[in-house]
Amino acid sequence: MSILIKNVDIYVNNKIKTKQNIAIKNNRIKNFPISPDETEYDEIINGNGMLAIPGFVNTHTHVAMTLFRSYADDMALMDWLQTKIWPAEDHLDNDIVYWGSMLAFAEMIRGGTTAFCDMYMFMDSCAKAAEKAGIRGNIARGLSGISPNADQALQENIELYKNWNNADNGRFRVMLGPHAPYTCPPDYLKKVCKVAKKENMPIHIHLAETLNEVNDCIKQYSITPIELMNNIGLFDYPTLAAHCVYVNDNDINILSKKNVKVAHNPGSNLKLASGISPITKIIKKGITVGLGTDGASSNNKLDMYSEMRLAALIHKANTLDPYAITSKEAINLATKNGAKCLGYSDLGELKEGYLADIQLIDRTGFHWKPRLNDISLLVYAGNSFDVNTVIIHGKTVMKNKELLTIDTEKLDYEISRVIKKLYSFKH
Amino acid sequence: MSILIKNVDIYVNNKIKTKQNIAIKNNRIKNFPISPDETEYDEIINGNGMLAIPGFVNTHTHVAMTLFRSYADDMALMDWLQTKIWPAEDHLDNDIVYWGSMLAFAEMIRGGTTAFCDMYMFMDSCAKAAEKAGIRGNIARGLSGISPNADQALQENIELYKNWNNADNGRFRVMLGPHAPYTCPPDYLKKVCKVAKKENMPIHIHLAETLNEVNDCIKQYSITPIELMNNIGLFDYPTLAAHCVYVNDNDINILSKKNVKVAHNPGSNLKLASGISPITKIIKKGITVGLGTDGASSNNKLDMYSEMRLAALIHKANTLDPYAITSKEAINLATKNGAKCLGYSDLGELKEGYLADIQLIDRTGFHWKPRLNDISLLVYAGNSFDVNTVIIHGKTVMKNKELLTIDTEKLDYEISRVIKKLYSFKH
Repeated sequence: MSILIKNVDIYVNNKIKTKQNIAIKNNRIKNFPISPDETEYDEIINGNGMLAIPGFVNTHTHVAMTLFRSYADDMALMDWLQTKIWPAEDHLDNDIVYWGSMLAFAEMIRGGTTAFCDMYMFMDSCAKAAEKAGIRGNIARGLSGISPNADQALQENIELYKNWNNADNGRFRVMLGPHAPYTCPPDYLKKVCKVAKKENMPIHIHLAETLNEVNDCIKQYSITPIELMNNIGLFDYPTLAAHCVYVNDNDINILSKKNVKVAHNPGSNLKLASGISPITKIIKKGITVGLGTDGASSNNKLDMYSEMRLAALIHKANTLDPYAITSKEAINLATKNGAKCLGYSDLGELKEGYLADIQLIDRTGFHWKPRLNDISLLVYAGNSFDVNTVIIHGKTVMKNKELLTIDTEKLDYEISRVIKKLYSFKH
Repeated sequence: MSILIKNVDIYVNNKIKTKQNIAIKNNRIKNFPISPDETEYDEIINGNGMLAIPGFVNTHTHVAMTLFRSYADDMALMDWLQTKIWPAEDHLDNDIVYWGSMLAFAEMIRGGTTAFCDMYMFMDSCAKAAEKAGIRGNIARGLSGISPNADQALQENIELYKNWNNADNGRFRVMLGPHAPYTCPPDYLKKVCKVAKKENMPIHIHLAETLNEVNDCIKQYSITPIELMNNIGLFDYPTLAAHCVYVNDNDINILSKKNVKVAHNPGSNLKLASGISPITKIIKKGITVGLGTDGASSNNKLDMYSEMRLAALIHKANTLDPYAITSKEAINLATKNGAKCLGYSDLGELKEGYLADIQLIDRTGFHWKPRLNDISLLVYAGNSFDVNTVIIHGKTVMKNKELLTIDTEKLDYEISRVIKKLYSFKH
């Protein structure tokens, strides 16, 4: 399978090169031919007037939580989890998670997101939906060490790894998903570490999301969550830490030294009144930071344009530094740095040999005029509805704003059906 | 002229009423008939499946600054003004401002904004563009007391009032536009007050936008900008104060006592690294707060959906209170409270006798599924591209996403033309 994107502007090395051609062979960018022979390609996409940038990498989400979108808002994290989300999650099943995930993939592809990193339940169903949708995914079974089925869940995570890691020629990767220090006691985390060592699996965990979490941890263990994880040995395995809103200088040093990656979720951290992560300090220490939407229930959308803009805006005010996160840095957080968070070294940039995850952006909207600086416009004015075409793993999954891998009529029908089933407990 | 919007859900009194009819007669909402006779109406709009909410009121902007969108980004306010914006503004003329304004109106209408409050130059051209676009506007001549043409500008503001105040059956209102305390010395502001008294004109001013502004004011006058304005007597006239990022408890008491309205511009305040206004404290004191985008050059869009979401999000994290600005409050800031900022008591709600400024929202996007709480969805997930139809002052200005009052092909052509003219100084 080969694709030629003709005559498109491309974002590469923090600059825009106009009127390029992108040749895709199988799942990778082959090259940027100057005078391509169109007859050599299975599919030709006219990129005239459009801007090609790497697909966005959503480094922290719980995709099936689309089904809890607008179910509980204007609440603090623990109240929201304990009184609304966890009780509702007891009613999930494979069928519900499959369609909730599919809805998320439709929304994400629609808005230029080509890869996601998830930690949740019924992940086999999530993976099957991702396989159908054609999106790239790092998936983990969410693990709660205080749950009665804690060991069974860890076993499921191992099964998930055996079934899905590297599936579809590397489109899937499986991580271990210990939920958080406050749901996973040290003994359980040590079991997780054993599996990480034995199976060579990376770890995805929520860390230092709220001030209460940090204070409770200090009360219980006399050290911060980051120090606790380090002492347990979690960071001896490749770790992606979501949130890191409350991290002190010593915590940041640990994260840097242990090469922990950070998934920054500005929208969710604001909405749950968690706070604002000191992400500029974290970046300055050389730590790789990606962006995430978190679940749709705490956002309430899976829109990386919104998240990228938020990241570029809030840290300027929080540090009173207008250079805090520049537009170029914001794009890189959403693309190549996100790819590194997922463990890729060949994703998130438009380069020869890189995986072909690409979005083509329509710049004809009023908010794109005048076109004085496309990079600024993309970050500060761009809208997920500007995305025209999306290619993932060398396959066109959206063309001219039409989803090619998801039957949206069927999706509508199935979402109505599973919503009735999911919320039947309320009646 | 009469319009019937049939079978539409409406947002009224902080709730959603399903399957209503809205009857519009001339420029006002006549009533909500249960069994309307369609033959009585000039225009029928099928609102089936859509949500009608009041049009957004953008309480602080500089519309022609669309032409500086992406011209200068990632800069602090004073640097940005002094090195980039003010020099470029010297090259504006009536023709350029007309088309820059028209571009803004296209973008605003496209995103459900039906009224704007502007302070800028060549305002006769802005008004003419607004008249053509059909948008509601409060306009002011921006006044700099330290400029060589300070008195002439004040005279132009009076002329603007005579020519445009209450034009088109009340669609236009003219305010006085003293720029800010740091550009308008007390003696000049006293002249502005005299005009306000004589002509019975309200005032629109930037106040306490940055920490430097406040510190400089205290250094020069030993009091805060708010105290200074109060001492000068500015607040004896109806005043809309944009920003109020740095206001202490005493300042807030003054604003409350003098019934000063506040235009909150979260996006611009974040982008220019100004800071985060203590808007929840301001609201608690009973002060009327509206939302604004500020100019497109410091935002970089005129998208009230983004602004409403930002307002709902950032204050939660800034106060660590998940209830800081609820979704309902955010909608009210963007609609009825904004209308009050512009001096209206019959705008910003869907009520009998109120001015007919309405947006109809398409809720079929993936980000609107499942529809558990439309009010939350509107604020946290809503997108300006969801707007399907817009009515202003009883006239349909956008229908099925097509602008009816603006020739978008001509707009494209004219924007290219005036951009060449405006930026010729760079060559």
